[in-house]
Amino acid sequence: MNIGIFGAGNMGATLGRLWAVAGHDVMFGLRDVRSQRTQARLFELGEHVQEGSLAEAAAFGQVILLAIPWEATEAVVRANAEQLAGKVLIDCTNPIKPDLSGLLVGHTTSAAEEIARWAPGTKVVKAFNTVGAGTLEDARYGDHSASVLICGDDEPAKAIVGSLAEAIGFEVIDAGPLVESRYIEPLAMLWIHLAIRGNYGSKIAVKLLRR
Amino acid sequence: MNIGIFGAGNMGATLGRLWAVAGHDVMFGLRDVRSQRTQARLFELGEHVQEGSLAEAAAFGQVILLAIPWEATEAVVRANAEQLAGKVLIDCTNPIKPDLSGLLVGHTTSAAEEIARWAPGTKVVKAFNTVGAGTLEDARYGDHSASVLICGDDEPAKAIVGSLAEAIGFEVIDAGPLVESRYIEPLAMLWIHLAIRGNYGSKIAVKLLRR
Repeated sequence: MNIGIFGAGNMGATLGRLWAVAGHDVMFGLRDVRSQRTQARLFELGEHVQEGSLAEAAAFGQVILLAIPWEATEAVVRANAEQLAGKVLIDCTNPIKPDLSGLLVGHTTSAAEEIARWAPGTKVVKAFNTVGAGTLEDARYGDHSASVLICGDDEPAKAIVGSLAEAIGFEVIDAGPLVESRYIEPLAMLWIHLAIRGNYGSKIAVKLLRR
Repeated sequence: MNIGIFGAGNMGATLGRLWAVAGHDVMFGLRDVRSQRTQARLFELGEHVQEGSLAEAAAFGQVILLAIPWEATEAVVRANAEQLAGKVLIDCTNPIKPDLSGLLVGHTTSAAEEIARWAPGTKVVKAFNTVGAGTLEDARYGDHSASVLICGDDEPAKAIVGSLAEAIGFEVIDAGPLVESRYIEPLAMLWIHLAIRGNYGSKIAVKLLRR
């Protein structure tokens, strides 16, 4: 599958590398000129990885991962809305205040629902927002796989995202329609507070136990 | 320990029974005259269990469990605020719309924070709101214990609630101050939607994996 990735920070670079290793072709869409850091990362990734502009990555991908800071998201999504229409957009953003004290949106809407409004016709799937980069690298915790909660309004799109999560070792929990992002995004805020303020560290992950 | 329980529904009755079995003395505070159903439950519980009015249960308990429907909560808490002052109040409520479609409060406040405003001087600890009654009965899922997320602004109160959770088999996750209820209450909404709409059923529980 061709996957475009908006952003090459921790989340984008890690997921891009893992999906390239799994046999997908990845294009990183960068907002700025390429950085030394990004180049070094891309160099390790070999021929299955390219870089380009955001518009080029949007055109390249059948699936696009949105992995840029929340404050840049509206402008980027609006500017690329035409290219994104009809495609699967994986939203792993969290609308977090710069001081990490809380969420900027919630309760009556969510980042994912806003993004869907900014890119009409795009099949937005919320996923990976509750997972730290360290857990992306290795989803195993002893004998358990960490859970990825996904939600969205397009079932085939959710199935694609689910298979991309399973391919890198996660258990997929289908949380229903995109509106469930209102409950999944606060879980990311909780994760961040546990990791940073609660001294649980970043090697923590949510698991849905079942019996 | 003397534990007063406001309400004798699924959550209140189950926690009351488990704590009575663990050696605590429990008084159920009932809003109405005793029901056949409540009597039958109390009969099974033996001498460690009493019933009374809400005011009597508030006076009896060193710790009070608030386990009544959200729509009755404000009136009940305000009416008993004087008795509750200085005590530990375990809030397991969720401010859920009657049709279960979403939360009534959130983002800029939470049920727990509202309750703390209604009962000044009470040491409110959010706990058990993300746990189904079936998981209360048995917190084990294979080789894992389900997690109880607790938060509150009084550390000794949190320690007491944590020990009450551990006594019935849970792993306790300290999520920090009471404001974290803004992120823990949406998790209960997610749990309910997964259980009911997502067809995961009620034998599901949240676990924080760590390594």
